Amino acid sequence: MNDERRVQQVLARYVRATDRRDGRAQGALFTDDAIVQIHTRTGPDSYEPVGEPLIGGAGVEYAVTNFMPPHPPGGASHHTTSDHIIDIDGDRAHLNAQFIVFEVRAAARPADGWPAGVSGAQGSVRPIESGYYDTALRRIDGEWKIVHHRVLLDMPIALPGS
Amino acid sequence: MNDERRVQQVLARYVRATDRRDGRAQGALFTDDAIVQIHTRTGPDSYEPVGEPLIGGAGVEYAVTNFMPPHPPGGASHHTTSDHIIDIDGDRAHLNAQFIVFEVRAAARPADGWPAGVSGAQGSVRPIESGYYDTALRRIDGEWKIVHHRVLLDMPIALPGS
Amino acid sequence: MNDERRVQQVLARYVRATDRRDGRAQGALFTDDAIVQIHTRTGPDSYEPVGEPLIGGAGVEYAVTNFMPPHPPGGASHHTTSDHIIDIDGDRAHLNAQFIVFEVRAAARPADGWPAGVSGAQGSVRPIESGYYDTALRRIDGEWKIVHHRVLLDMPIALPGS
Repeated sequence: MNDERRVQQVLARYVRATDRRDGRAQGALFTDDAIVQIHTRTGPDSYEPVGEPLIGGAGVEYAVTNFMPPHPPGGASHHTTSDHIIDIDGDRAHLNAQFIVFEVRAAARPADGWPAGVSGAQGSVRPIESGYYDTALRRIDGEWKIVHHRVLLDMPIALPGS
Repeated sequence: MNDERRVQQVLARYVRATDRRDGRAQGALFTDDAIVQIHTRTGPDSYEPVGEPLIGGAGVEYAVTNFMPPHPPGGASHHTTSDHIIDIDGDRAHLNAQFIVFEVRAAARPADGWPAGVSGAQGSVRPIESGYYDTALRRIDGEWKIVHHRVLLDMPIALPGS
Repeated sequence: MNDERRVQQVLARYVRATDRRDGRAQGALFTDDAIVQIHTRTGPDSYEPVGEPLIGGAGVEYAVTNFMPPHPPGGASHHTTSDHIIDIDGDRAHLNAQFIVFEVRAAARPADGWPAGVSGAQGSVRPIESGYYDTALRRIDGEWKIVHHRVLLDMPIALPGS
């Protein structure tokens, strides 16, 4: 497997861990001193940081485990990434990717079955967030780990009391 | 071309065949004894099979040709996949990918032309299904073929009388 | 980096240039005599060209700079591509990809802050266009450039007076 694919698969594991709210799997993708910062877009080419950065795999694990709202029953999400631009320079790599987040809500089967005339998949899939991941990685003992991860969100985030 | 890309392109041809309802092209991607099973999600990490598995390329071809509802006039779909995780071990491969299905409905141009003030693409694009493809492949005579394909759908499927 | 990835990254830069309305970056991806033609779908396997083709990187740059409507304040877009099929033959390459275009509209933070109970990302992400990119490239002085680019749009386009 070439390094570009290895790097892309780190992000592929990142989005699965996010969607499963699996803080441990998520944290394992980062170095101990990694910096993770969410930004929101303030203009065509400008972003501002939101809150304090997370530090290291332990910080990521803690945040995913404690602060990400769980999916409701029947709920799921897909953080999808596309159009990766990857530069490898020895043991350093840089990755930029588009992301679109979909919120999934499965419909519950009525106790007396689906109504007549209804067929196919039952539920909703809705895009709710988008932006870019801009990520630096380093190869440590043969494995690519994230050292700096910037989430560049296209829209503002409402935080309690903000 | 490296094997990871070859494997990914099998899935790229799979989604095109599905969207075109091209049973023959779809079936050609599977071995004669391949097993294809649709599952629906029943909880955070649990799925249950829906109906009987399809067997082999011939079974897939028959199902696509006879059971997939055709697109209405102006209709199309895009089964899109992302964030592939691919493991190659000699002549065996495993692929996991996210999928989002979009339903496309082109607007019909009014007989007397588009109304004043209307511009750009006319129609709707709507995400309707999502989940994961979890797929095993084998290299046979130099070509990667699907031997086991699991469609892990995020939502239940309403079948007539279910 | 292998050639398939190099080719894919040309398209990754193309979509970023489109979304940023960066005519110069967009034009730089094409040869001087490149042909770019938008088509709209007229049936299951048929398309018709829309308007005249753009010619060369200069033509692309001019069109992006002068004819693409700018994003409104808070607006953005993501042209996302997936399921690439890439064939390399020496210094020639062919690429086919699905595309989905998302229109993003960030919500404006109210002057007195977000209302109580509102949380998370504030804005809308909406799929508005879809189709295929079908693209031929040539390697010139070690760099892959687009020589022929067909945008195969799933839906018709309303043009002023059409």
